[in-house]
Amino acid sequence: MFLRNCWYVAAWSEEVTRTPLARTFLGMPTMLYRAEDGEAVALEDRCCHRNLPLSMGKIEGSDVRCGYHGLKFDRTGRCIEIPGQPQIPPDAKVMRFALVERWGLVWIWPGDPAKADETLLPRWHYLTEPGWSVIKGNDAAPVAMKCNWELNNDNLLDLSHVTYVHPKTLGAHGADQYPVQTDRRPRSVRMIRWMPNVPPIPMWAKYLSSAGNVDRWQITEAELPGHCTVDAGFAPAGESTIDNLREDSPRIRVLLTATPETESTSYLFYAQIRNFGVEDAAFTDRFRRDSRGVFDEDVVILEAQQRANDAMPDAPTIDIRFDAPHLAMRRLVREFAEREKS
Amino acid sequence: MFLRNCWYVAAWSEEVTRTPLARTFLGMPTMLYRAEDGEAVALEDRCCHRNLPLSMGKIEGSDVRCGYHGLKFDRTGRCIEIPGQPQIPPDAKVMRFALVERWGLVWIWPGDPAKADETLLPRWHYLTEPGWSVIKGNDAAPVAMKCNWELNNDNLLDLSHVTYVHPKTLGAHGADQYPVQTDRRPRSVRMIRWMPNVPPIPMWAKYLSSAGNVDRWQITEAELPGHCTVDAGFAPAGESTIDNLREDSPRIRVLLTATPETESTSYLFYAQIRNFGVEDAAFTDRFRRDSRGVFDEDVVILEAQQRANDAMPDAPTIDIRFDAPHLAMRRLVREFAEREKS
Amino acid sequence: MFLRNCWYVAAWSEEVTRTPLARTFLGMPTMLYRAEDGEAVALEDRCCHRNLPLSMGKIEGSDVRCGYHGLKFDRTGRCIEIPGQPQIPPDAKVMRFALVERWGLVWIWPGDPAKADETLLPRWHYLTEPGWSVIKGNDAAPVAMKCNWELNNDNLLDLSHVTYVHPKTLGAHGADQYPVQTDRRPRSVRMIRWMPNVPPIPMWAKYLSSAGNVDRWQITEAELPGHCTVDAGFAPAGESTIDNLREDSPRIRVLLTATPETESTSYLFYAQIRNFGVEDAAFTDRFRRDSRGVFDEDVVILEAQQRANDAMPDAPTIDIRFDAPHLAMRRLVREFAEREKS
Repeated sequence: MFLRNCWYVAAWSEEVTRTPLARTFLGMPTMLYRAEDGEAVALEDRCCHRNLPLSMGKIEGSDVRCGYHGLKFDRTGRCIEIPGQPQIPPDAKVMRFALVERWGLVWIWPGDPAKADETLLPRWHYLTEPGWSVIKGNDAAPVAMKCNWELNNDNLLDLSHVTYVHPKTLGAHGADQYPVQTDRRPRSVRMIRWMPNVPPIPMWAKYLSSAGNVDRWQITEAELPGHCTVDAGFAPAGESTIDNLREDSPRIRVLLTATPETESTSYLFYAQIRNFGVEDAAFTDRFRRDSRGVFDEDVVILEAQQRANDAMPDAPTIDIRFDAPHLAMRRLVREFAEREKS
Repeated sequence: MFLRNCWYVAAWSEEVTRTPLARTFLGMPTMLYRAEDGEAVALEDRCCHRNLPLSMGKIEGSDVRCGYHGLKFDRTGRCIEIPGQPQIPPDAKVMRFALVERWGLVWIWPGDPAKADETLLPRWHYLTEPGWSVIKGNDAAPVAMKCNWELNNDNLLDLSHVTYVHPKTLGAHGADQYPVQTDRRPRSVRMIRWMPNVPPIPMWAKYLSSAGNVDRWQITEAELPGHCTVDAGFAPAGESTIDNLREDSPRIRVLLTATPETESTSYLFYAQIRNFGVEDAAFTDRFRRDSRGVFDEDVVILEAQQRANDAMPDAPTIDIRFDAPHLAMRRLVREFAEREKS
Repeated sequence: MFLRNCWYVAAWSEEVTRTPLARTFLGMPTMLYRAEDGEAVALEDRCCHRNLPLSMGKIEGSDVRCGYHGLKFDRTGRCIEIPGQPQIPPDAKVMRFALVERWGLVWIWPGDPAKADETLLPRWHYLTEPGWSVIKGNDAAPVAMKCNWELNNDNLLDLSHVTYVHPKTLGAHGADQYPVQTDRRPRSVRMIRWMPNVPPIPMWAKYLSSAGNVDRWQITEAELPGHCTVDAGFAPAGESTIDNLREDSPRIRVLLTATPETESTSYLFYAQIRNFGVEDAAFTDRFRRDSRGVFDEDVVILEAQQRANDAMPDAPTIDIRFDAPHLAMRRLVREFAEREKS
């Protein structure tokens, strides 16, 4: 079950070069490369003659030449040369996918290119905005996860898992004792947890303007299809409310998205950004190291869950209170999937 | 094709500890652990919330807590805590399997716990009885076999294979020249071979009360579903008959059972016991080394047979005289399988 | 889709010895061995009793004894001994395949032995003829290819691939600029390319009787089912025509055949022969090294094509002019497959 008419992260900008990059999105082998003028291009990774992946061929200028019999395709996917014959049949072409490059990421629209709409990108502008320190996850490469992409939405829309999955890395901070709210929006779902008047996390405390207790929050927004922004922050107790958060408080945003490779594998792209200690290189290094450890822990869980789901597809399950946000998101995904069919 | 309402060996007692042990029995992922009071417990290895294997969680007292969102289950499989909510829905539970621990082995009953009947255990009391030296196969761990469990019954109910599979380890002793009898019982089948008035096996001869020829025997009893006891012994020629074997003769019993993991994989548990040279540590060491070699040879054959069966499921086969015992056992298994359906 | 009533290369002669060799042809596990008198034998690799591969047994004289319960089969596949019983049932037998050993190769006929016809062997007599230097590919062993056997025919009937697949090993010599002819014959297809009045390949030039330009040719003949002979040669310009090639010109013939193991795997056997520089050992060594590199390049392409075909079985493809020979061959194979059914 895939949504086609929406944006997915295909790659970090620095991964797309003058050498072909082969990835599979939503089950479709795809080749990414950069044209002579720097434009990122995504073509079906299959010569329309005898199926050899075009990514095994060579980039010539802004075109790609197949490595088997030399057919050449331009960046629109049109065949422009067939060795040994002057005529090029009209169906000599491969699919070309809509792409947009924004905030250091290359986004692909696997569905109808005519419907590609840049206003539907998640608002991940922080990635290139001054005032934020950005750590690109996994050294600006995706993590290959052996699990369905929606398990990542489920995971991030229920942060009570932090207590049990990340006790050694993020700490078992008792967030699972606070209720959550579910905020349903037209193309996204938000999970909101408000923890008022609690001690600050020691490591972060020095970045606060005043000593004493704080109000803490955890907010995950999952935008269609699976772009999750986790906002974890705190402010001196009593100075903000959940509806009026101080943007200048010490604030961490984690941006995560699982791009489906197949029904049971996906590419996890993530970044961690923060607005405090931005110049503190040692702090940044520690964050980088720590965040790798955290996401590795998540991947272990999600892959085990996928294996269990595959082995026991009909096993009865129960839902709990904390499931409300991710169940809302699953419904939203299915609503849009229905719309795509009609 | 599995029988559910019967006992299987799940583990050696020493394998079940305060740390979860994950095994799959008859296709069902299962978690084994030991409660605070020492009781061995077997639960479905799947949290009823989001399917994560419970074996990835933590033992707390006599309970287990899921490693994803912290649901806690007691040893009966009932959920007793859901973080973030006071009510526990009545269907918040996982399967619990009947277990019994006997003779250093943990036995599991994968079917209806109400029908679990300890009188149906095979009589493997020798394992903890004085007067017998016991060698636990594979250092008290199962051998992971890539074959269906019934191939092990077939193998042991036709010991003519010894001549061809084990010529270097057990010796090609010509047993395949003696006929066998088949003894059909309500829940077992016995294969009996009597070899009268033959020279003794040199290594064992010194344990005999008198010199000269012996009567040798090979008896395999396979009890449902696949608990095989191989009795190999001898006595001074003329002193016993097949119906009246001297228990005090030098006697080896090999206990073997293949617990099905899936249709095409199984756990082979085995032990070798003997009533002679019990105090002879060097003799015991040699037995241990030799028996490992012998069972490794069997596993090579059974796995090759499984691959061939899979590749050529409809290949025509013939039966021979020596097949009578294992064909009787296969019929018995199918009779009980039919009974389970009705 | 396999043709059964035709010859396939099963092995190089030196591979078939007094020790069993297990191979699978057209999905059928097969055991090859040499009888006491030197005859090469191919039997179904499966004991008709309990399916153990006979190749795990022992050769005794000209017979083979199963390694499980000792059934013995003669070279015709008839069971001639069953331990423990005097009578041998008439259906105690395994398939025996027709074999012929010719030119250092063992050829198998997987279909009806009564139809095996040696006149249908390809004319690969060069392999043992004086005046030719022979390099047995891959040191006289097959290359295990993870692709369907017909992809090899396709590859060799369109040598325009040389420019794109082998630019570093064979050179991008522009052959793809010359048209090809397709010659359809009753049991084969020929692809013919004539390149008149071109400079000779430098390495070969010294073997020519005169300096100056040459006429070059590439001819692939694919004989049913997949025996391909590639004839690449040249002669002083104007001295020959495509219909009248000088046999004494410097001439290379590459003999290749992909024997199907399964629908998606095959054994590639190949040899390279030439009639010039026959005594030049350094030249032969260089040829041996180079040809290994060339065929490795082909295997990479064919395996990638197989993966793509498997992943996208319904992807639309186009045909180009150079496809005419291999499309003719595919039609021929299908014609004979239809005939086999009726």
